[in-house]
Amino acid sequence: MTVQQKGRQTREITPPPRIIATAAIGGYKEKKSPLAADFDYIYDDIRAGCASFEKAEHEMQMKAANFALSRAGLKPEDIDILLAGDLLNQITVSGFTARQLAIPYLGIFAACSTFTQGLGLGALLLGGNAAGRALIVSGSHGCTSEKQFRFPNEYGSQKPPHSQYTATAAGAAILAASGGEIAVTALTIGKVVDLGVSDPFAFGAAMAPAVADSIAVHLQEMQRSAQDYDLIVTGDLGKVGREIAWELLQRRGINYDFDRFVDCGCLLYGQDSNLNAGASGCGCVASVSMGYLYHLLQQGKLRRILLAASGALMSPIANQQHESIPGISHAIVLERIDG
Amino acid sequence: MTVQQKGRQTREITPPPRIIATAAIGGYKEKKSPLAADFDYIYDDIRAGCASFEKAEHEMQMKAANFALSRAGLKPEDIDILLAGDLLNQITVSGFTARQLAIPYLGIFAACSTFTQGLGLGALLLGGNAAGRALIVSGSHGCTSEKQFRFPNEYGSQKPPHSQYTATAAGAAILAASGGEIAVTALTIGKVVDLGVSDPFAFGAAMAPAVADSIAVHLQEMQRSAQDYDLIVTGDLGKVGREIAWELLQRRGINYDFDRFVDCGCLLYGQDSNLNAGASGCGCVASVSMGYLYHLLQQGKLRRILLAASGALMSPIANQQHESIPGISHAIVLERIDG
Repeated sequence: MTVQQKGRQTREITPPPRIIATAAIGGYKEKKSPLAADFDYIYDDIRAGCASFEKAEHEMQMKAANFALSRAGLKPEDIDILLAGDLLNQITVSGFTARQLAIPYLGIFAACSTFTQGLGLGALLLGGNAAGRALIVSGSHGCTSEKQFRFPNEYGSQKPPHSQYTATAAGAAILAASGGEIAVTALTIGKVVDLGVSDPFAFGAAMAPAVADSIAVHLQEMQRSAQDYDLIVTGDLGKVGREIAWELLQRRGINYDFDRFVDCGCLLYGQDSNLNAGASGCGCVASVSMGYLYHLLQQGKLRRILLAASGALMSPIANQQHESIPGISHAIVLERIDG
Repeated sequence: MTVQQKGRQTREITPPPRIIATAAIGGYKEKKSPLAADFDYIYDDIRAGCASFEKAEHEMQMKAANFALSRAGLKPEDIDILLAGDLLNQITVSGFTARQLAIPYLGIFAACSTFTQGLGLGALLLGGNAAGRALIVSGSHGCTSEKQFRFPNEYGSQKPPHSQYTATAAGAAILAASGGEIAVTALTIGKVVDLGVSDPFAFGAAMAPAVADSIAVHLQEMQRSAQDYDLIVTGDLGKVGREIAWELLQRRGINYDFDRFVDCGCLLYGQDSNLNAGASGCGCVASVSMGYLYHLLQQGKLRRILLAASGALMSPIANQQHESIPGISHAIVLERIDG
């Protein structure tokens, strides 16, 4: 495999590393999602049988990792590098996953785009002969996120209509040089874009400019048109951020069918008006891309998609200190390769 | 450049990427350190002229990045990838640095070993042709850390003698294919090791087993003896953890001169008995390695060192839930290459 630099942010890998196994794990809200059938396992219990929400989040990461490993017929010791991250302070849940799997571990963080950062970085490490097989894991839990970033759910506080709900979900993927027909063929590493949104409930709006920027840079550096993709998938912009990103792309002269400009947060929670603008969280793009979208690629219903997840690089402390919200979007190309 | 896999955890890069510029920035405690003269800039003001400790931590990261860039005669747009991380929740300080520099950004986290994870990952990305130049930045602030992990300093709470003080410091390095005589020739990606220490003040002890493991794996996979290194440098085990790691290495049959088994935390704060077991924090290994140690390599007083920084992958929430502390250590080889 070789990595080719296409401009400053984009890299193409030939032959591309394959995603040889995936897993998508869901929680109590995912069960009611239109994508429920695409999850490998759904926990009925909000605590996933654990003593705390944080332990439940770890349990779900482990379930995703173990599903992917078992599907690939591999053991943890067959994996060279674990790339994992999550939303919790000091990404502790991922550290616990690394402890349990005992795989050489690189902790990563890009908020809700952590999973695409991991897939992209994994593809680069395989492409550069730094690893033979990489396991990428990420997830989130609605209750740990609300408690940490806003208020514990038990307080019953109201959220505005443009807010989103953190997915209680996890996703995993195993990358290898061969095996399986779905590949990571290229990626665009995001730059931080921050247009000054500081409302911590409006991170869809805060992230939209970064998403539009990464998509535009990607198309330019790959010398492709948006039409070269069956879908352009954003991570968790939600209903509000999706429309903003769409408008920003049009202003840059990038025209695309709005129906094919889909968002994992809208796909996962968008049909439930109680869940406001849709889903968010590391587990959202991880589970939707490694479940629903991966299945469509496997079935040949999609051939090539651009997955431009996004992250809001904020914390409650930063908000309290009147910082605006830096957005970032790491975009990867998932492609069906026959033969 | 090519990356060669030496066993599961170790990678060698030939020809090795060079560290073409570095910076070490310190704060109020660093001024009294025996290493003070090796810092490029020291802030007298505990807030570095900023309105909050968090903003001061960001200011110091930026100062480190800008020092390194200016020393290399480069602008942010000349850098392909920024690898940065810190101890603050959601590594927000690094996100702000990425926002200001506008360099394609990968957020990383390995607690106090974040800087060596960044240097190692940067070397792998250069080695695999994924980047031409990488900027690695990390830092920490004594007041943001105490407030976030323990108590605000203003409470005046007592710390036990085996505890450490987070460095108020930042370090930066720029990696490129050529230029300068100091290179990152190899690295060993750490596995999490956790022997059950749960005292949040005892992270030197908690991390020591991971450090011993990474050093032992490194020597075995590189087929080298400890004597092949002029120094084996740990990140911030402090006085207590250093002795434990030393004993664990001896039990594994690795004999080495205790005087050459040095620790950045002991070097930085170890002579001040008011600072207990020494320094810790992302800024400790970043500033000591890119200041003091880099200078010794430049002067030819050292030719090859193993820098095995370590991180305690803990959070207050994890501690409150009675989790023990997972330790990790990413080790890199810094080497003087003539010609």
